[in-house]
Amino acid sequence: MSRVALLAERLRVEERLLTAALARHGWEATLLRPADLALPLQALQAVDTPDLPPAVLDRTLATPESVALSALLSSTGTTVVNRTATTRLLADRLAFLRHMLAGQIAVPPTVASFGPESTLRAIETLGYPVYLKSLSAGPPMPVALVEDRDAAEALVEHRSVLGDERAVLVQKAVADPSQTVRLVVAGQRLIAAARLVDERWQLVETGTWERLAAAVTQRLGSGVYEIEAAEMDAGQVVISAGNLVEFRSLAELGVPVAEAIVEHLLEVVTEGAEVSAIPSEGVSA
Amino acid sequence: MSRVALLAERLRVEERLLTAALARHGWEATLLRPADLALPLQALQAVDTPDLPPAVLDRTLATPESVALSALLSSTGTTVVNRTATTRLLADRLAFLRHMLAGQIAVPPTVASFGPESTLRAIETLGYPVYLKSLSAGPPMPVALVEDRDAAEALVEHRSVLGDERAVLVQKAVADPSQTVRLVVAGQRLIAAARLVDERWQLVETGTWERLAAAVTQRLGSGVYEIEAAEMDAGQVVISAGNLVEFRSLAELGVPVAEAIVEHLLEVVTEGAEVSAIPSEGVSA
Repeated sequence: MSRVALLAERLRVEERLLTAALARHGWEATLLRPADLALPLQALQAVDTPDLPPAVLDRTLATPESVALSALLSSTGTTVVNRTATTRLLADRLAFLRHMLAGQIAVPPTVASFGPESTLRAIETLGYPVYLKSLSAGPPMPVALVEDRDAAEALVEHRSVLGDERAVLVQKAVADPSQTVRLVVAGQRLIAAARLVDERWQLVETGTWERLAAAVTQRLGSGVYEIEAAEMDAGQVVISAGNLVEFRSLAELGVPVAEAIVEHLLEVVTEGAEVSAIPSEGVSA
Repeated sequence: MSRVALLAERLRVEERLLTAALARHGWEATLLRPADLALPLQALQAVDTPDLPPAVLDRTLATPESVALSALLSSTGTTVVNRTATTRLLADRLAFLRHMLAGQIAVPPTVASFGPESTLRAIETLGYPVYLKSLSAGPPMPVALVEDRDAAEALVEHRSVLGDERAVLVQKAVADPSQTVRLVVAGQRLIAAARLVDERWQLVETGTWERLAAAVTQRLGSGVYEIEAAEMDAGQVVISAGNLVEFRSLAELGVPVAEAIVEHLLEVVTEGAEVSAIPSEGVSA
């Protein structure tokens, strides 16, 4: 029986759904914990680590660390979904936004600032409310919503002095959470669009979001991820994107997310490589 | 008079040497502080920031933040030395080492580990002493020399629990500081090789290091940087590389470092682009 490793710290509801979907295709899922991995750069064989399976589905948040892990696993010949280049764009917020702009996809007004006073100036220029986001996705520094000057001063000081954050993205909060939509892509298909209403996800028609999702996928490549977007007066904007970690809420609504992920994964494993290219034009290295 | 901005928090001895060298070529140097910069992604014009000069010499340590700043400055049409792609390899230790290996350049045995227990296992496998290095260069987490099991346990716990470090490079400490040599590259030339003796730099013959420096430059591209290398029984190894920030000690020994940097900078500004390509083959995205 062919094996696929689910790269995750533990088996959650989502991994159980994936395990069942894989079993229906005759594949066995195993858990591969990142914390158990020590991968030598010089050799193909890991130091005293679990046998590496031929295919890995990355079920972790996209962060600089997951990019590193994905690159090393790929270099040993393991097929990793998402591809490292896609994970890199999901982990690197600045690169992601620049790729969107290079693809003529609207994003909220965003300023990269490199010091606390510049950050405060950028916030005042963009106008409240704004989000403060670290350049890279990941736990160390959460996304912060800043609604007024007092909060701005407190948060900027907190992040730069205590958190040692030396650069930050200041992004205009163009839509409140009720106006944003979550688009879920598997392979090159938009498989669901959902909106948070009273803290519960509700499905919305995918129709109006197909073009935007296709444009984003054009830049990120085929893969499994979610896109945060919003419908504004001036048109649709893309706010952020991330690896699709949570999907039980969509599964409960009847969206066959695990099945769609597994279909994409097996297609990649069978073909040996992703089909769509990831363009770099328009974004300097 | 043409202007070049020195990207640095303040004018140190090195920036004064560069200012004098630029003046001899008829160029004016100005100070550009990263902390003063807030660069919008959407427009070419910075928000209420100092006028951006046509050329910038990056005098900061290569870090993820300096990569972001370099990429944004470049996207406005500013010529930045080093190139963003070179700064990226100087900031990303894992990518740097993988590029060395792809170029058949020996590096010390190195393991990337993704959890504290894996790190301890990797340390025991490699054998003491080892260095612990964060994936990215930068102040948040310093390079640590680990000489025995007690230190390993204390440092690994410190970095993972208190520092929230989720991945680390464990690199065999193959040479003690007296055996290592510092190679300084400007343009595509090795302009100095020096060794630390009794805490003072002493110049050594560049002859035996020319080939290694050329091989490294083949991967990093032309630019201004320093390479840490060592002569081992089995041959020369490259340990690390970084942007050339400190060079007053070499200037005091008579090496015309500022002059060599300025010659390279003006060549790039005049030609509008770096001449050497940076290969990506052998290293997955």
